[in-house]
Amino acid sequence: MRAILLSITMVGLVQSISAQEPKMKSESDHQIWAIAIHGGAGGEPSRWSPQKREAREKGLMDALSLGKKRLAEGANALEVVEAVIRRLEDDASFNAGRGSVLTKAGHAELDASLMNGQDLSCGAVAGVRNVKNPISLARRVMNDTPHVLLMGDGAEEFAERSKVELVEPSYFFSRVRLEKRANQTGNVASLPVDKHQSSDEKHFGTVGCVVRDRSGNLAAGTSTGGTSKKLEGRVGDSPIVGAGTYADNRYAAVSGTGIGEEYIRNAVAYDVIARIKYRNDTLADAVSSNLSDRLEEGTGGLIAVSPSGEIVMQHNTPGMSCAAADNSGRFECFFSVP
Amino acid sequence: MRAILLSITMVGLVQSISAQEPKMKSESDHQIWAIAIHGGAGGEPSRWSPQKREAREKGLMDALSLGKKRLAEGANALEVVEAVIRRLEDDASFNAGRGSVLTKAGHAELDASLMNGQDLSCGAVAGVRNVKNPISLARRVMNDTPHVLLMGDGAEEFAERSKVELVEPSYFFSRVRLEKRANQTGNVASLPVDKHQSSDEKHFGTVGCVVRDRSGNLAAGTSTGGTSKKLEGRVGDSPIVGAGTYADNRYAAVSGTGIGEEYIRNAVAYDVIARIKYRNDTLADAVSSNLSDRLEEGTGGLIAVSPSGEIVMQHNTPGMSCAAADNSGRFECFFSVP
Repeated sequence: MRAILLSITMVGLVQSISAQEPKMKSESDHQIWAIAIHGGAGGEPSRWSPQKREAREKGLMDALSLGKKRLAEGANALEVVEAVIRRLEDDASFNAGRGSVLTKAGHAELDASLMNGQDLSCGAVAGVRNVKNPISLARRVMNDTPHVLLMGDGAEEFAERSKVELVEPSYFFSRVRLEKRANQTGNVASLPVDKHQSSDEKHFGTVGCVVRDRSGNLAAGTSTGGTSKKLEGRVGDSPIVGAGTYADNRYAAVSGTGIGEEYIRNAVAYDVIARIKYRNDTLADAVSSNLSDRLEEGTGGLIAVSPSGEIVMQHNTPGMSCAAADNSGRFECFFSVP
Repeated sequence: MRAILLSITMVGLVQSISAQEPKMKSESDHQIWAIAIHGGAGGEPSRWSPQKREAREKGLMDALSLGKKRLAEGANALEVVEAVIRRLEDDASFNAGRGSVLTKAGHAELDASLMNGQDLSCGAVAGVRNVKNPISLARRVMNDTPHVLLMGDGAEEFAERSKVELVEPSYFFSRVRLEKRANQTGNVASLPVDKHQSSDEKHFGTVGCVVRDRSGNLAAGTSTGGTSKKLEGRVGDSPIVGAGTYADNRYAAVSGTGIGEEYIRNAVAYDVIARIKYRNDTLADAVSSNLSDRLEEGTGGLIAVSPSGEIVMQHNTPGMSCAAADNSGRFECFFSVP
């Protein structure tokens, strides 16, 4: 089956956007902060409707603004990652939280993970169907249990005990329900959903966030509704620390989006760390060599931030929805197209 | 919570057993084969009852003999890994398959993964309750789906469609049921179970197998019943490719056993590969530096095999149940104690 997955090749080249050059440690280090977010990678955004493009851009801008504000105030990296991903989960434009795609059997099954680069503490959940913000449940797993990953019914029972916000299945603002509603109202054009998600030309709408805070701490998080029409119970890379998410204050914070199976098979997020740690790669080299050497074209993208606040966002798909900002005043929001 | 996990420190030192020196590639390469298996790491086997020690030793010998025979006949690495782990899963002496420990709520929830070093194909299942041999279900996920990891109800539905052997909950030969039975019959001494599993001095009874076959292919697999009294839905490292299992023909095949959360947090199995790939470590150095630099004493152990058939088995717990053999005629079965 692997050949079929890898045959989703697209014409894109690896793109690299370094938001700023690496900075040297100095007394003003406590002023440095940096944040990057993604809302998925895949098909060409130039082929999207203006409404869809606008909805996604607004979603990214909102989430980035929240993160910028909190970081400038001195908030902790992990807090910011959780808050920013909650915002993206609440936005039906993305395939995470409210906007999650459905499994073959018609359920939303949500996955998320986050990691604190300060002490490598981490938490994750997989296959939850009734949790509004899976990223916050992952945080509770990190804080309140000796475990890293809880899945399925057990994760949902833990959610009930943890008093995180639970929702009915109807909360999930799925394409199918939206289309039904649109057919009833005749208002198809305003659907804020990703039509590519359910077509052959997929746009993986997973969301993610990486942060360097003013204290020098790094954190990363990723949240997803998974692959459209996936088999029931399928777990991708988003809740797998080492595959979709990794953070270590000494090296980098990384979040991925793409064909989750390839990210697991290649331990992508941790491989970026290993290239820096064992081969002394720069962050940009570690990310680009990972995407070009190991992953077939069309597999996905990565966002990452270094201990000095350097931001790297790359993908080997035609497009990636992403945005970044740092203390230097740079602020960008874009749908990257080759 | 991490401090609590790491406070399970034990007095063991890292032990290294290289079954043979690295061999040079030669025309007789097709004669080379090597296999290592483990049945868990943890408390000191010297404190076990003779019956328990004998049952475990017999289980390891049986599984190793099967693997040796198949490898000498020229069987493929992945086939051998599956067959050997099935044998260990069927043996109630180990915390995998039949002998799995129970969750807090009293269920057996089984996890397994395997990986083919030839093409990095891999498959895994987490939290299945009705499958006799989770390693074979993982193989079906690898072969018959585009996914890598299926969990919970979805994995069980896939198991039914895949026609793997299903069992009733009563199949699992748990400590609780065994003790009940022993109390009824008065025959407590013959319990083939790991009493340390439910005491403070844990012995992690996960099973694993790594192989180098006569064609030069590597494969690895791991299977477990998880942690005794774990929260429902907890997933450890065994079904996580990159944490508990990894295989790449160019570098090594690796299987781990220990505190799964630490193996996920540190991407242990893939980190061994990365040290060889990016820093040119020998397999023995990669395994020992991983266990000593990154993991606290008492965390667990690793078995690994290199492309040339070198075998490495190490642990930073007081004991590890393991065995190894290769074409040179060396055959060992032991419970390693410092």
